[in-house]
Amino acid sequence: MNDLPTPSLVVDLATLDANVDAMAAERPGDRLRPHVKAFKSTAMARYVAQRGGHDAFCCATLREMEGLADAGLGHDLLLANETLDAERLAALVRRGDARVTVAVDSPQTLEVAAAAGAEVLVDVDVGLPRCGCPPEDAGRIAELARARRLTVRGVMGYEGHVVGNPDRAARAAAVEESMALLRGALDDVGGGIMSAGGTGTFDLHPRTDEVQAGSYLLMDTAYERLGLPFGPALSLAVRVISRSPRGWAVVDCGLKSLGMDHGEPALAPYNVFFCSDEHTTFLPGGDGTLPPVGTRLRAVPAHVDPTVAYHEVLHVADGDEVVEVWPVNLRGW
Amino acid sequence: MNDLPTPSLVVDLATLDANVDAMAAERPGDRLRPHVKAFKSTAMARYVAQRGGHDAFCCATLREMEGLADAGLGHDLLLANETLDAERLAALVRRGDARVTVAVDSPQTLEVAAAAGAEVLVDVDVGLPRCGCPPEDAGRIAELARARRLTVRGVMGYEGHVVGNPDRAARAAAVEESMALLRGALDDVGGGIMSAGGTGTFDLHPRTDEVQAGSYLLMDTAYERLGLPFGPALSLAVRVISRSPRGWAVVDCGLKSLGMDHGEPALAPYNVFFCSDEHTTFLPGGDGTLPPVGTRLRAVPAHVDPTVAYHEVLHVADGDEVVEVWPVNLRGW
Repeated sequence: MNDLPTPSLVVDLATLDANVDAMAAERPGDRLRPHVKAFKSTAMARYVAQRGGHDAFCCATLREMEGLADAGLGHDLLLANETLDAERLAALVRRGDARVTVAVDSPQTLEVAAAAGAEVLVDVDVGLPRCGCPPEDAGRIAELARARRLTVRGVMGYEGHVVGNPDRAARAAAVEESMALLRGALDDVGGGIMSAGGTGTFDLHPRTDEVQAGSYLLMDTAYERLGLPFGPALSLAVRVISRSPRGWAVVDCGLKSLGMDHGEPALAPYNVFFCSDEHTTFLPGGDGTLPPVGTRLRAVPAHVDPTVAYHEVLHVADGDEVVEVWPVNLRGW
Repeated sequence: MNDLPTPSLVVDLATLDANVDAMAAERPGDRLRPHVKAFKSTAMARYVAQRGGHDAFCCATLREMEGLADAGLGHDLLLANETLDAERLAALVRRGDARVTVAVDSPQTLEVAAAAGAEVLVDVDVGLPRCGCPPEDAGRIAELARARRLTVRGVMGYEGHVVGNPDRAARAAAVEESMALLRGALDDVGGGIMSAGGTGTFDLHPRTDEVQAGSYLLMDTAYERLGLPFGPALSLAVRVISRSPRGWAVVDCGLKSLGMDHGEPALAPYNVFFCSDEHTTFLPGGDGTLPPVGTRLRAVPAHVDPTVAYHEVLHVADGDEVVEVWPVNLRGW
C-alpha cells in the first residue's frame, strides 16, 4: 500500500465483505437490487453478486446498463431513472443479453420504452420532489403502457426525503407513509413488483419486494451518523505535500478527487480546513501536531457516489496489501 | 446541437474567442501562463496557444504535464504544485521534449526536483493557507536548491485568498500586499521570474512576470460576480426528463456532471431546487411555467474546474453547430 500513487481510492475488503454480508442477511437474493451508481464498476458488481447472492441490478444511467450487459451481468437490469434516449435503449434491448426494465412517469418516457421494447416500472412520487408521477396518476400511466403492449412489472418509488433522518423511529414512520402511497399505486398499476428504498431505510421495508441500495457497500461520512450496520470501506490514500510553520499542512486530494456536495472529507485525527482543486489544507487535531511532508494519510469522503465518479480505479486492499484493482468503468453517461 | 446526448458540456466558441482575446490584450505572450487544470484538454490548450499566443503552460498534476508533453506542447511547463513523485517527474525530464519546472517549498520537495533534474520555482506563502514556504524562508530554500545544483528560475505565490473579493479596489490593495511579500522573496531567491495571480486578479499584476490563469477561458457563475471582461463560455446541455403537476420539473444532470463545491448550477430562467446524483430538480421562474418533458436546456456550472473533470469531452459550438470535439484527456493524476 505504501507505493500507491496518490490520490488513490482504496476499498477495505474486510469492511466491504462485512457490509455485503450484513445486507444479505437482512435482504437476501432478489430482495435487494444493488444500485450500481454508487460504485460504477462491473468488477465490483460481480463481486457483490457472487458474495451477496444478488444478481438483479439497479442503474442510474444507460452507460451503467450497457456496461453490466457487456460484463455478462444483464440477468435483470433496472434503469431506475427516466430516459429519452430511445435509440440506445432499443440497441440494449436488441442485444438480447440483458433483461431491460426502465422507469417511466410520463407519456413521453413511456413512448421511449415502447419504441425500445423495454419492460417498465411506473415511477411514483412518494414524497421526494424529483421524478415520479403522483400516486393517483400511476394507474393511468400503466394503462397507457399496456395499450402500447408494454410489460408493466410494477411500481418503484424512492423515499429520498426520508433516508437521511437520523431518528430511526421517525424514519420508519416516514417510510411507512411513503410505502402506503406506493402500495396504493401498485394496486392501480398491477404487475406485482414494489421497488423502493435505499441504504438509510434498508431494514424498514418489510413489505417491499426489492430495496435499491448502493451506498451500504462503501459508505461515507454522511450515512455514518445513522448508526447503520455498515462500516466505511472506502478511503482516499493521500500524502502530505506541504507543512507550514504557521500551523497547517496540505494533502494532495481536493475538489477533483472528492464529491463535495455533502461537505469536506474527514482526515482523522486532523481537522480539515478547506479543499481546493488538488489540495486539502488541514489543521492539527487534539495533540496539536502536524505530520511531516511525505506522511501517508487516509481521507474519508463525505459522499461516496460523486467521489468514485472522479476515479479510474478502486484499489482493493486486504489489510495492507492491494489484492485487486477494479476499474471504475461505468463513468460518464 | 439538438442531437447532442445529455448531459454534455458545450463550449461556445465565440465566447471562448472573446475571452482568449481579452486576456491576450492585457497579458500577451508569456505574460500569461494559462492554467491547464481549468480545462484538462490538450486540444483546448493548443487552441489557446494558437489564438492567444501563450505557449508556456501551468499544470496542477503530473498527468497534465505528461499529456501536454505528449501533445507537443512542452515548450515550458510549470507544475505549480508540490510533488513527491520523483520517478514520474524524472521520466518526464528524461524524455527531453519538455522544459520541466516544478514548485518547491520544502527540503523534501526540493529533493524530489533534484532527483528528477527538474528546474524549480520557490513556492511562497503570500497569504493563502495552502502550499508555499513563509516569505522569510524562501532564500534558504533557494540556497538548498542551488547546493543541489538545481536551476532556480524564481518564485511563485498564489493570492487565492484575494481573487474572489468582489470589491475591485480592495482586491487590488490585497494583491499588492501579497505581491510585496513575493517581490521580497524574489530578492532573496534570485532567478528573475515572479509567477502569480489568477483569473480574478489578471489585470492587477503590473509587475508580475507571468499570471497563472485558467478559469477566464470558460468562466463560471462564481467568477461572474467580479465583473471581469470574460463571458460564460461553458454550459451543460441537459434535457427535461420529468415534470410534476405538483410544480417542479427535473433535468438529467446532477452531482456527477457538476462540481458542487461552489453550489448549484444556474438553469435560467428557472430556479434550481436541488441536485441529486443524476438529477436536478427545478422550480418555475418569473412566469410560473415549467417546460415539457423533452425540452433542451442549458445549465451553467458554479465551478468550472471540478465540472470539466467529470466529463470525457468538450463539444465546441459555433452558434448552434458543433464544429469540434475536444477530449478532456488530462483527467486523473
